Formats: sequence, C-alpha cells, structure tokens
Amino acid sequence: MPATDSHCWVGVDLGGTKILTGVFDASLKLLGTAKVSTRAERGLDTVCERIERCIREALEGAGHKLAQVRAIGIGAPGAVDADRSTVLFAPNLPGWRNVPLGRRLARALDRPVVVGNDANVCTLGVHEVELRAQPRHLVGVFVGTGIGGGLVLNGQLYEGASHTAAEIGHMILEVNGPKCGCGNRGCWEALASRTAIYRRLRQAVDAGEKTILTDWLGRELEDLRSNELRKAWHHGDKLVRRILLQTADYLGLGIASLVNLLNPEVVALGGGLIQALHAELMPRITETARARMMPGSERALTLLASRLGDHAGITGAAVLARRALEDAPARTAGVKRA
Amino acid sequence: MPATDSHCWVGVDLGGTKILTGVFDASLKLLGTAKVSTRAERGLDTVCERIERCIREALEGAGHKLAQVRAIGIGAPGAVDADRSTVLFAPNLPGWRNVPLGRRLARALDRPVVVGNDANVCTLGVHEVELRAQPRHLVGVFVGTGIGGGLVLNGQLYEGASHTAAEIGHMILEVNGPKCGCGNRGCWEALASRTAIYRRLRQAVDAGEKTILTDWLGRELEDLRSNELRKAWHHGDKLVRRILLQTADYLGLGIASLVNLLNPEVVALGGGLIQALHAELMPRITETARARMMPGSERALTLLASRLGDHAGITGAAVLARRALEDAPARTAGVKRA
Repeated sequence: MPATDSHCWVGVDLGGTKILTGVFDASLKLLGTAKVSTRAERGLDTVCERIERCIREALEGAGHKLAQVRAIGIGAPGAVDADRSTVLFAPNLPGWRNVPLGRRLARALDRPVVVGNDANVCTLGVHEVELRAQPRHLVGVFVGTGIGGGLVLNGQLYEGASHTAAEIGHMILEVNGPKCGCGNRGCWEALASRTAIYRRLRQAVDAGEKTILTDWLGRELEDLRSNELRKAWHHGDKLVRRILLQTADYLGLGIASLVNLLNPEVVALGGGLIQALHAELMPRITETARARMMPGSERALTLLASRLGDHAGITGAAVLARRALEDAPARTAGVKRA
Repeated sequence: MPATDSHCWVGVDLGGTKILTGVFDASLKLLGTAKVSTRAERGLDTVCERIERCIREALEGAGHKLAQVRAIGIGAPGAVDADRSTVLFAPNLPGWRNVPLGRRLARALDRPVVVGNDANVCTLGVHEVELRAQPRHLVGVFVGTGIGGGLVLNGQLYEGASHTAAEIGHMILEVNGPKCGCGNRGCWEALASRTAIYRRLRQAVDAGEKTILTDWLGRELEDLRSNELRKAWHHGDKLVRRILLQTADYLGLGIASLVNLLNPEVVALGGGLIQALHAELMPRITETARARMMPGSERALTLLASRLGDHAGITGAAVLARRALEDAPARTAGVKRA
C-alpha cells in the first residue's frame, strides 16, 4: 500500500539492452520494479529519457511519488568516475564519453543522483543487503556476456587509483589462449563467459559434433541464452555438459587466483550464467577453485552464488544512493547540503 | 658517530639462508647492517639465537645500545599472523609452525618486537621510505627463487581475511603450464621466477642448446645466480637472452593482470632477479605489461624497479616496527602501554 509520508530509494540498472529500475523502502526492501529497453543506438538523450520513464513507472507501481525519493543510484556499464557521477566510457552504449549522467538526471528529476560502475554496484548490493555488511573483504564475480567484478576491501568499495579497479574479466589465465574482446589473448572472460561458451559450441558444431541446441536455435546458435544451456544440460546433451564443465573449471581457476591474491572472506558469484546454472555448475566451480587455493586462504573462504539474481544491480544501486547521501553527500550530484 | 641519547629502530630480514639486520635512526636513515647465515636446519632455537646475535652486531657497528632500540621489526618468510607476531608456517624454515617469534625475541631482548610477512614488509619499506608514502595504492612484486608480493591499498598494508593476501606468485597465468612448488600448474612463479629460468635453461641444455653458463657452472648449472645471468647476457649468450626475455614477458603479463584487477598508482618490482637485471629486463617487462592493461588503469600507473635492493626487507621491517609502536601498540609483542 502506498506510504505517502515515508521516503524511498531508487536503484537503476542501466544495461546495454535493458534498463531495470527498483523502488526500495527506507530499510532497502524492494517495493516495485519496472523495465524498459535501452535503445542505446538512438543516442544519449533517448537513453536518459528512458531511464527517467523507467524510474517514474517503478514509482507509480510502488505507489510512491518522486518527491519521496531521497536519492537515486545508477549502475552503469563501463568506466565511471564515481566522484563526479560521470560515465567515462561505456563499450555497450555507443557515443558515451564523459557523460555527466548524475548531474543530468539530477537536473531532470530534481532528485540527488549517484552513478557507479555496474559490477561494483552489484557487489555493493550483495555485500550490504544479502550479506548484511558482514564480510570485511568480498569479491563479486558476475558472469554473463563478459565477466565483471567488484571488490569490497576493509568494508569499503575499492575503486583503485582511477576508478577502474576490479577488471577481473581481464586477468590473464592462459597466455596463448583465445582472443578477447579487449584485444588481448587468454583473458578470463575469453575463457569462462557465455561468449566463451558460445565460441566453443560453434567450433564443436563446425567440427561436426552434435548438440540439441542446433535443433532449437539453428546451426548458427543465434540468441543462445543461459536458459537454453540449462535446458540442454538437463536434456543430457553431452557436448553442452562437457563445455559447461570446462567453463566451470576456468571459473574455478580464476577464483583461485583472486583468492590467492586477496584472501577475502567471501567470493560471491552472480550474473546471468550463474543465475541460470548455479545448481549445475557451483559444485564443480567450488571443487576446482578450492583445489588451487593456498591452504590459509582456502580455509578463510566462503564461496557462494548470490541469491539476488537479476536484482543485484538495482539493489546495489539503492545501496549506493543511500551510502552517498548518508556518508558522503558531496559525491551525489544535485544534493543540497544542509 | 654514536648518538647515545637518541633512539633507533631495528629491522630484520629473516630468510631461509641468511639473516640481515639493519639499525635505523628516528627518521629511518640506515646507520649500519650485519649479516649471518640462518642455519635453519639446526632448528628454531639456533635461528632465534642467530637473529639476536645479528641484531647485537648491527647495533655495535652502528654505535648504539640495545636500550636505545624503540622496537624491532622482522620480515619472516611464510604465513605470519601479524596481530600476534606469530609465524604460522614457513616452507623454508623446517619445523616452524605457530612460532610466537615476536614474543620470544621480545622476552630475550627486552625490547618490543613485531613480525610480518617478508614480501609485505618489503612493500611497506618501498612505500614509506622510497616512495615517501605518496601512492595510495601500491603493488610490490619481488622476484627471486619465487615471486612474493605485497599490497598497500588506501595507504594501508592489505593482509586479507587471514593474513595470507598477496600470494601473487600463485596467480594462475597458464592453465596447463609447468608444475609449481605449490603443487598446482602454471602459477606465475612457475613461469617467471629464477626457478623458472633455471628450469628452462636446463631443458634447453638437455636438448643440446649451447650456453656459456655450462662453461662457468657445469652442465647441471648448480648454484645459478642472478649475477651469472647478467654476465651471460652481456657476454651475448643467445639462449640466456631468449629465456630472460621470455621471462620478462611473463612478468609483464602478470603485472598487467594485477593492474587490471587493482588499478594501483604504482607497481614496484624488486627481489634478487630484478636487482641484478633491471637495466636489461625492465624495458621489456614494461612494454609487455602496458600493452595488456585496460587503458584507464594503464594511464594511472607508474611501473618502477625499487632502488632499495637488498635493503628493502630491513627497511620495511624498521617501518613495521615504527608503525606498530606509533599506530597500534597492541600489535607489538612486549610493548608496555603508557
């Protein structure tokens, strides 16, 4: 029921293909969501209008007014200068370079807006809402088309010298491995993302191997999604099982490297691939990862699949909004200081 | 000249084969050093006596008395519980398990003693003395028999959930790569340490390739040290040059992974191999590393070879002693609180 006198937080997950928005109450309980397509190809103005629209729709659904929103958080794909709430560049949003997204939306909506990198924001959501801010050191690993990551170290989001830390998808795991989207070879995301799975499947099909997926999607395997992979797994498809287990091994190896490096209390996995296939893959990921960790770090570690699923981004964005307003108002575009 | 009324700090670099001790004045200027062999095979009591002796010798050389020592810092090889100044285990010190080294030496010498992991301690020395605590985020990479590392994040030594962070030598860089001392395959130190260089040289010699090193050291290449590698390089030895450049490439690739992950302001290289060969290898290491970094992280980075050389350990240990006494007296064994 509408609670017209109470305030709320809004979290926005800005993706290359869709925008998801959530309205959260003061204690970060989710009250309602809305979703629109991004239409990134139509340019910056269109995307900003669509974010606005998506926020208004979610508020309407949750029975809240814009005036009740204390702050809006946004997780954006790409490099973000969190101090200025500015998107520096975003490979999946054509033409986005140095976009002062926070200031722009703050002006349009007359609410404070804070922007962070999407994988950082997801990690923040897992840390503060799912894990109740318990772990001092958390590594978030989000596996979908690529592999994104976030680091909470000493209880704080770690962003590095120029806001580009936690590019975990571009750790090198196989020096002469397959080519990555970044131009290098053997990056983790070239070995263990859905893109890597697609590449291995296509190579196998081209080499004459059989899979039920070609019956469902055609030989090109266009529009292959994580759910089809799960269905094929349960259909007993041998090729899909073999490739998914190989991918799980690569995920485990990368996690072992991260743990040897950062000795976190928790590694939390999320993203589309994990959401669809955690029951099938987590045992193998865990086994491979634990076998490769240094004993001291292995004992200290909890390895889990986040239960936030699709909502990690909006949840984390709401956390970002709340933190920005309560901890460091200067970082929030449009905030009037008391 | 002796300054009998001023206080000093002592730094100890406890290694598997030698113990190096330094006496530092209040502003961490080095006043004198002493060195003894460790004799680790003779057991814990012998090693502790030898540390004591080495401290007394350095003090004598520097014209200081034990009573002037405000605190003693020790960098120890292996896993260290820094809160309790206890060595949990040390692969190169047989029989060392849960050794309360800090408490033990504090009792013997009646001075406060604090113990940290050796690579962490070296990183602390580079950060505070060489770089004057300027970088907020620093990665230390020490290349010798293995590869050790240390992380200064947000100006503080980062030790992880159970004091085992920064095991950078056990990042996986080549999934099916050579076997590592830790039991895994393709760890960074199995690809880019002096041990890896030795393995490649031996394989090449066994396969009939020629190198001047066999004239100098015999076919087994026993006692191969970094200085011989440098001499062979300048002798124009083709095999040595090829293997060292390959090693430099692996060093660069691992550094790129670290930078993509942690986006530090500085990566500082040290250790015996770098000390002996920085002029020869740093250009190639730098070139390979920079080519593989994400653009945002690459621009923010300074990559350098530490000038502390052999003194990184004792310098960092003195920093550790000073920090422990000035910042957090509870961590220092034997400190009497005011």
